Amino acid sequence: MNWGFIGFGRIARKFLSSLQSVQGETAYAFASRSNASELEKEFPDVKVHDSYEGLLADPDIDIVYISTTHNFHCQNVIDALNAGKHVLCEKPMGISSEEIETMITVANKSGKFLMEAMWMRFLPAYREAIRRAKSGEIGDIQYITASFGFNSPNLKPDGRLLNPDLAGGALYDVGVYPLTIVSDIFGWQPDSFSAQAVLSETGIDQSIQVQLSHEGGKMAQVFGSIAMNTNKEACIYGSEGFIKLPLFWKAENFEVHKGDSIEKVELPFKSTGYVHEIEEVAKCIKQGKTESPLFNLNDSLMSANLVERILSSIFNQP
Amino acid sequence: MNWGFIGFGRIARKFLSSLQSVQGETAYAFASRSNASELEKEFPDVKVHDSYEGLLADPDIDIVYISTTHNFHCQNVIDALNAGKHVLCEKPMGISSEEIETMITVANKSGKFLMEAMWMRFLPAYREAIRRAKSGEIGDIQYITASFGFNSPNLKPDGRLLNPDLAGGALYDVGVYPLTIVSDIFGWQPDSFSAQAVLSETGIDQSIQVQLSHEGGKMAQVFGSIAMNTNKEACIYGSEGFIKLPLFWKAENFEVHKGDSIEKVELPFKSTGYVHEIEEVAKCIKQGKTESPLFNLNDSLMSANLVERILSSIFNQP
Repeated sequence: MNWGFIGFGRIARKFLSSLQSVQGETAYAFASRSNASELEKEFPDVKVHDSYEGLLADPDIDIVYISTTHNFHCQNVIDALNAGKHVLCEKPMGISSEEIETMITVANKSGKFLMEAMWMRFLPAYREAIRRAKSGEIGDIQYITASFGFNSPNLKPDGRLLNPDLAGGALYDVGVYPLTIVSDIFGWQPDSFSAQAVLSETGIDQSIQVQLSHEGGKMAQVFGSIAMNTNKEACIYGSEGFIKLPLFWKAENFEVHKGDSIEKVELPFKSTGYVHEIEEVAKCIKQGKTESPLFNLNDSLMSANLVERILSSIFNQP
Repeated sequence: MNWGFIGFGRIARKFLSSLQSVQGETAYAFASRSNASELEKEFPDVKVHDSYEGLLADPDIDIVYISTTHNFHCQNVIDALNAGKHVLCEKPMGISSEEIETMITVANKSGKFLMEAMWMRFLPAYREAIRRAKSGEIGDIQYITASFGFNSPNLKPDGRLLNPDLAGGALYDVGVYPLTIVSDIFGWQPDSFSAQAVLSETGIDQSIQVQLSHEGGKMAQVFGSIAMNTNKEACIYGSEGFIKLPLFWKAENFEVHKGDSIEKVELPFKSTGYVHEIEEVAKCIKQGKTESPLFNLNDSLMSANLVERILSSIFNQP
């Protein structure tokens, strides 16, 4: 398929590397409002449009990859679907469940493929760790911890991470990963949760901790921060042992702890890691599917709904 | 000093080993209601009383070490103080703040030394890790995680861990360690907390997660379980790095993470680890102190108060 890129930052560059390593998939065009001429020089083999509209009107493009700031995702997705393109949109696909619902309506009408780019769920190591956890190998799973805190070196009040107008904040940017690992084991709907956050001067959640309780007394503690490094580990605890995933959101290995035994499993990803997600998207589209069973539109809706409830609990605190 | 033991289980045996390695301190007598004759055979150099009263009436005993089940601590402490002995009592010293207040009143009247045996606070590695965290070396501390879950192989409904009449439960038994590390950095009084627990069939907290928020947006997530192993790590996260303590409650080493650098610090404890606590007790008593500044009676009171509020929030949940 021919891929068009809307938005071209750090993630898009890594995505591009992966795309170039998948047979049959072509980085066909970029749309850039600001640096079209530089991109033309840097990527002579890729067509450059000087507007999103121009790219979406290009009949040779099959699928659009969106990596603008979170606040633009919904409009970008709708425009791309309405232009008759399949769409892969960076996470979070929307910043409210209402946005996701709108996108789902448009997607259903269009008959095109739409997916949120929660790449973690497609990584071989991550998938195998979850499979083994769910197989009962570590007994009945009762507790999960996952933290994803990084110290962004260039936090600026108007930058994408701190600016509320660009849907900044730790939960949108990194907190969705810990929530997704919890959803993989316990589902998206906790019985109850409580959240606390450190707010930035710009009013977004700079660091956030969330404690969740799911049916059957299953528990989870997750953390996200854009201002502080954490160990970036996830642990899935069962009655018979636990599975530890270092750097879980870009997992290439994990450990299975049972008593005194530690089994180390290595399952590196290909290229920059997006290959596995890209292969899934290509496979689904070839099969005429409009969603991937591995992260479908209901996942996006449930994820947005949970994020929304958590943020609402913070910003409506006395 | 001559030490008398009230209660003689697994912990007391380890404590005894440490005591025997401290010069000037003597394991002088045990009190046992059930197995006096066996103890006499096993420890021919130690006097054995067949009642607690007998031991407390022994004029040659200077200090009593109490390691009965939690529910008996308060009465044992009061009896020992009233008998004119100094007292070191295993944690938790009491199972309500009211019990601690009563013990403090009796201690003050007696003029004798009283301390809760929160041995972790006296370990060289633990103390150094806390000192370095508080020195600002990892920046402004914003977040702490600590889990202490173990899978007790012999959980019986009437055993000390599961029996509510013996003050069983994860928070009393192991949860107090994570709470103490949080108190060491942020103090004992969170602005708010929320707790969730898995209850046993006997009605005690088998696994418990607590999320705390302290003044200035400082956050902590802690976990305790008597039915499931966790990684048993504590991490103290600052704006410039983090300190990781594996097996933090019996710390012998820790890591200081700053950017890509990891400094490993080894500070093993002596004997079975209780030496450091015993030396502190002996030093305080020699100096005429009735409390240790490292874990004083107010610490015990604040700890009991927090535990009480957490358990109350769980058992009064709808």
